[in-house]
Parts: sequence; C-alpha cells; structure tokens
Amino acid sequence: MSETPTNAAAAAAALRARAARLDAEDELAKLRERFALPEDLVYLDGNSLGALPAGVAATTADVVTRQWGQELIRSWSEGTWWTAPERIGDRIAPLIGAAPGQTVVGDSTSVNLFKALVGAARLAGEGRTDLLVDAATFPTDGYIAASAARMTGLRVVPVDPDRAAESFGPSTAVVLLNHVDYRTGRLHDLPALTAAARAAGAVTVWDLCHSAGSLPVELDENAVDLAVGCTYKYLNGGPGSPAYLYIAARHQRDFDSPLPGWNGHADPFAMTPGFSPAEGAVRGRVGTPDILSMLALETALDAWEGVTVEAVRAKSLALTDFFLECVAAYVPAGTVESVTPAAHAERGSQVSLRTGNASAVMAELIARGVVGDFRAPDVLRFGFTPLYVGFADAELAARTLGDVLTTS
Amino acid sequence: MSETPTNAAAAAAALRARAARLDAEDELAKLRERFALPEDLVYLDGNSLGALPAGVAATTADVVTRQWGQELIRSWSEGTWWTAPERIGDRIAPLIGAAPGQTVVGDSTSVNLFKALVGAARLAGEGRTDLLVDAATFPTDGYIAASAARMTGLRVVPVDPDRAAESFGPSTAVVLLNHVDYRTGRLHDLPALTAAARAAGAVTVWDLCHSAGSLPVELDENAVDLAVGCTYKYLNGGPGSPAYLYIAARHQRDFDSPLPGWNGHADPFAMTPGFSPAEGAVRGRVGTPDILSMLALETALDAWEGVTVEAVRAKSLALTDFFLECVAAYVPAGTVESVTPAAHAERGSQVSLRTGNASAVMAELIARGVVGDFRAPDVLRFGFTPLYVGFADAELAARTLGDVLTTS
Repeated sequence: MSETPTNAAAAAAALRARAARLDAEDELAKLRERFALPEDLVYLDGNSLGALPAGVAATTADVVTRQWGQELIRSWSEGTWWTAPERIGDRIAPLIGAAPGQTVVGDSTSVNLFKALVGAARLAGEGRTDLLVDAATFPTDGYIAASAARMTGLRVVPVDPDRAAESFGPSTAVVLLNHVDYRTGRLHDLPALTAAARAAGAVTVWDLCHSAGSLPVELDENAVDLAVGCTYKYLNGGPGSPAYLYIAARHQRDFDSPLPGWNGHADPFAMTPGFSPAEGAVRGRVGTPDILSMLALETALDAWEGVTVEAVRAKSLALTDFFLECVAAYVPAGTVESVTPAAHAERGSQVSLRTGNASAVMAELIARGVVGDFRAPDVLRFGFTPLYVGFADAELAARTLGDVLTTS
Repeated sequence: MSETPTNAAAAAAALRARAARLDAEDELAKLRERFALPEDLVYLDGNSLGALPAGVAATTADVVTRQWGQELIRSWSEGTWWTAPERIGDRIAPLIGAAPGQTVVGDSTSVNLFKALVGAARLAGEGRTDLLVDAATFPTDGYIAASAARMTGLRVVPVDPDRAAESFGPSTAVVLLNHVDYRTGRLHDLPALTAAARAAGAVTVWDLCHSAGSLPVELDENAVDLAVGCTYKYLNGGPGSPAYLYIAARHQRDFDSPLPGWNGHADPFAMTPGFSPAEGAVRGRVGTPDILSMLALETALDAWEGVTVEAVRAKSLALTDFFLECVAAYVPAGTVESVTPAAHAERGSQVSLRTGNASAVMAELIARGVVGDFRAPDVLRFGFTPLYVGFADAELAARTLGDVLTTS
C-alpha cells in the first residue's frame, strides 16, 4: 500500500462500510442461522470441510439412540435406512443439474471414481486406447485413474485441462476432468469440454468435488456421461461423509461396475449366486451404506431448502471479487499473487494466493481467527461458502492477511 | 413334545431354573450393562446388527457438536481423525489374533474384499490361474470375486468349503473362504484350510464377518495372508459401520491395491502426481475416512475392555447348546431341523433352524419380542452375542418359538 496511514484508515473504513452494506443487502445472509458456527470465527475452509448444519446433531442423536439403539434391525426393514443412498442422491441431484434416478450416495470419492472410470472404459468404443486425465488434478484422481487404466488395458495420458480438447481424438476412450482445480480454484469449461469429448466419441467423467454446491453444474443439460463428487465440502455432510456417483440415464443399462456388491443387485435379499444389476443408478451401490454419516448428510442438505444454486453462484462471485479487492487494498504490494483467474467464467468459489512462507502465514491467520488452508508448496487457499460466509468475513480476512504480511 | 401338560410345565420350570442358574454363574453377564438395549427384548440378531454400546451416543454428540461444529478443520490436523483407520484397526487386531500394524478400518466389506482379492491375485505365483471361492458364500463375496477375477485374468472356481482343500493345487492362485457360513452358522476349519492352501502355494483371503468378535480367529498364528470383516455385527459398530482389511506383515511391502487412494500414500499431503504406497497396512486406506461412523466404532470397541475372545467363545457355545436343548424341549417334534452343526468345532455363534413358512414364523416371533431373522427360503437365524445375550434369553426364545409353532 502506498497510502499514508490516514488514507489507509479511510480506505479500510470505506471497505468495512461496503461490507456492511453488501451483507445487509444479501438475501442469503440469513442462511448462516442454519449453521452452528463458532462466533467470531472467519471460516474460509468450507471448501475442505463444510460447517455443521444446525439440525445434524439432533438427527445423529436420533439415529444412534432410537433408530439403532431401540429399533435395532427393524430400522433396516421398516425405517429409512435401506433406500438412503438413492434417496439422498436425489436430494443432491438438483444441485448438480441431474434429473432424479441418476445419483447414488455411498463410498468415498476415490472409490466412486474407480467405479466411474472402469465403467467409462467399458462404455467406450472398441479400439480406443487412451484415458485422458487432468494433469493438475487432485492426486487421488490420478492414482485411481492409473489403476483403472492398468486394469482395463487403457493408457493414461496427462492433459492440460485448459487445452484438453486439443487432445481429444479417435483414440480417446475416457476423459477425466476436474470441474474446479483444487489448488488454483480455476473453473474449467464443462459445457465446451464435454461437447468436444462427445464429438470425439469419448466418455466423460467429471469430478465435482470443488464445484458442486458452489456453482451451477448442469450435468444433464450438457450430456455429461458420468460424474463423482464429495459431500463434505460445499454440501456440508460432515468429515468423510459419503460421496456420490452420477450415471446418466442413457448409460445405466450398460454401466458395468467393477464393484458389483450385493447392494447394487436387482434383488439383494434373494441372495442369488449370480450378479444381476439393479435398474438405474442403484447399480452403483456396493456394500451396506454407512447410516450414521448418510443420514447426517441427509439433514445437512436441509440447509439448501429454498436456495438456488444460481443465487449461491452470484453471491460467491461477489464475495471473491470483494475479497480480491480487499486483498489489493490491505496487502503490501508484491507479497501475494492470485493464482485464481480474475475472469468469472474461470473462477470457482475459492481464492488461492501464492506467497512466500505460506505455511507459516496460514498458521498465523488461523491463530488470529481466520481459517483457510495451505497447499504445498506456496498456496494460501480461501474458500467462500455463500450459505454461511458474508462480506464482513471477506473484509476481515483480507485485513488480517494484510496485518500478518505487514508485520511478519 | 410327548409329555403331558403337567410334565411339560415341569420341564419348562426346570429349564427356566437352569437358565437362571447359568446366568447367575456367568462372569460375562454384567457386560450387558455396557449396552443400551430395550428392556424385555430378546435380541438374537446381533449377528446382523449389533446392539448399541452405551458410550456411543455421547461420542457421536461430541464428534458432531464439538469436533466438527466447533473445531472444524482443526480436527483433521490436530484431533484424532486422520489416524483413525489404523488406530481403530489396532483396536480390532486382538480380536482377530493380529499383531499391531496389520489391520486398517474403512470402506465396506465388499470394497475391502475387492482390494484383498486383487491384491492376492498380484501376490500369487506366476502361472496360477484359479480363484477358489466358497460356493455357499454370502453373495457379495461371489460377485466381488467374479469382478476381481475378471480384472486380473483369473478364473473363478466354486468349491465346497468343507472339501475345499481337495481342490487346492498348482493352479490355485487365491482361496476365498468364509470363516462362518452366514446361513447355516457352520464354522470352517481356518487353521487346516489355511495350512493346506499354503502348502499348495496359494494366497488365502478369509471373510471374518460372521466370526470376528464371537470366537478366536488367530490370523497371525495360522499365517493367514489377507482377511476382511465387517464391524456392525459382533463388534457393534452401528449400521453400515466401516469394515476392516488385514494385510499380514510379510505381504505389506508387495501388497498392490487396486484402489490406491491418496489416504494410502506414503506422504498424502505432498500431493505428488505418482502413487507411492505407505508402509504397513495403511496402504490399504483409500479415500477420506468416514469420521462419524469411524469414531462411533472406536467407542463401541470399549465394550471389549477386559473381555477375552476365549471367554466369549465359551459362553457362545454354552448359549447355543442350551438354546438347542430348549428348542428340543419346547418345539413340536419334526417342525424344525437345525442346519447348524452340533459339533462345537463346526459351530459359529448362531443357530439356524429350517422350518416351513419360516418368514411368517419369524414375523410372529418378532411380534412377540424375540428378534432373529429370516434367510430365504426356509431358515430362521438366531444369533448369540455373548456380550449382551443371556441364558434366560435363550430359554425364552425357544419357548416362544415352541408356542408359535404349536399354535400356528
């Protein structure tokens, strides 16, 4: 900052006033009441672990004490347990632009990715040899892709997601891309990349971990083939809550899972020796669903009642714009560099700032009540979750970052 | 029963007195206090869903409200979450005869079975072609085995587990067996079958779902190679609680998982593009562990404090012996047939009775407060869980069954 202290104080006062006005005008501001967040905490890590929705504690207590403790096995036959994976999948569906019957919840993202990639390889045309993988992907996607490729005879080809379409061709079997890059917060062009892959005859698998719940996804509209995502970030399902798998209706009959567990059987209690897959996305189920986490997630999704993804996206962009503006005002020139694209069309719901000594800077921010996270080697990540983060949070986070970088 | 009503009443009185005496002498009887079971319920379905251990509700409330709600992301870096899979694996280890460092918790049984079978196929010697599978297995084992075989180039060969050793030979790559058959309650001879498979040069995978927590398993002592099991039956982890994978120490270096998720990486937060597996059983981890269910399981295992599996086994056999004796006394001759072996060495911790109209009979038993379950087409299953089932329960269950079969 080149301002004198007095000018700086005036600029700060102006930004604080702006934040207050933006919060007052924000129709989503009242949604924060739907979460049990500690007071005086600026929580900008909801892109890693979403905050606790208010009703979850009561649900969990009921699931443990009454449904398990008192009803016992009856809850499987008469309660809400057995159909939870597809029922909760259909609660997530509107948030990812999916019609009902295509989304099933259960297992981790990595496990669902394995199902999706092997399933995609089996859907791909004869003679296609390549599995294209976003080279900047969250590592587990690359590890699982390598395993899926090894076990289906494909070859992994790393691609730059921004230029991935240039690589699509007659040898492309499957394309695995992240909707939003976990490090940089870059949003990739799902409609264009899916259309290009489709034109090349390839099967698309999208990883929605860092986008679903923060911006419109529109899987059906863009004719995505398969997708996976976690539920503990923007969907607030809790630590390690189960992930989901989307299987487009047109592929369900031919989707051939490498994990054909009894829960995905057409008649699971017949206990027949041969596997006969269920109709619909249910064939993506594997073993017994993890009920405590599953039903916590179901209640967590109540936080979306009456909320549109479009409104969330508008607020998300306003928040990240405002945060970047505050960072520019508060942070000493040259100390940070945003690796998150400025263009709205290329921005997810996080801001990633590169800085020296990032690990120590983040530790100090956390000590001062501003919680983001650090990604090696030099990135500070700040996630903006519009259901419970406001403009005053963004201003305070940037101001605190400025203080840390000025005094350190 | 051929007795006159007076004789029958005397016999019943004698059995009730025996039950009371056996309960009074039972050193494990007081363990029932460690569970929150409904009064007046005879719960003989703990081999399907174990009862709720007393401390779990408090743990779950703390995990949700404080660890997640207040500590948020900090619980990953500073709390007990990250190491839960291997820490809880080591809590299960003594119950399955495993030294520390070989057992990891997470995912469903089906998913762990896939890891174990593909891992076993990769450990097997060159030129071995066959995956031998217990033909009477719980169906998901067969389905997953077929998928693992398909993806590793093996051929599935169904075998009668009692005579499986006759089939072991130079073409046997992997042998998958159930320790206890889920329908009949038959206990298979793990030491002899493992030794025979080993002598033939095959890799063994044992499914412990229906044995662990009800009888001694002794994986290390018998040089088992790999094993899986669930935690929601005799380990009382709750509905759909995570399963476990055992990887014998001697195989850990070469265990090559088909699901190499980032949690199994040697340095998961380095986010390196290539997969470098962690040392030890940790390489069996895949994605982010499901913390709510995982920590509920950890507390559930407190019910084992000071309890030996040997004492549990002794009580289990006494309970099933006594139940069979009561059934013989109370049930009209010729109406039921036990499909559970009479010999202790061949009996798990359940009694399965074949009868006509079994589904309706079980529904009536449940209506009268005796909860077992039905397995198609004609089996009544009664599970005996020595931590919270007593001899009076066994007597009352048999007497109620007698009443139902006499009046129906």
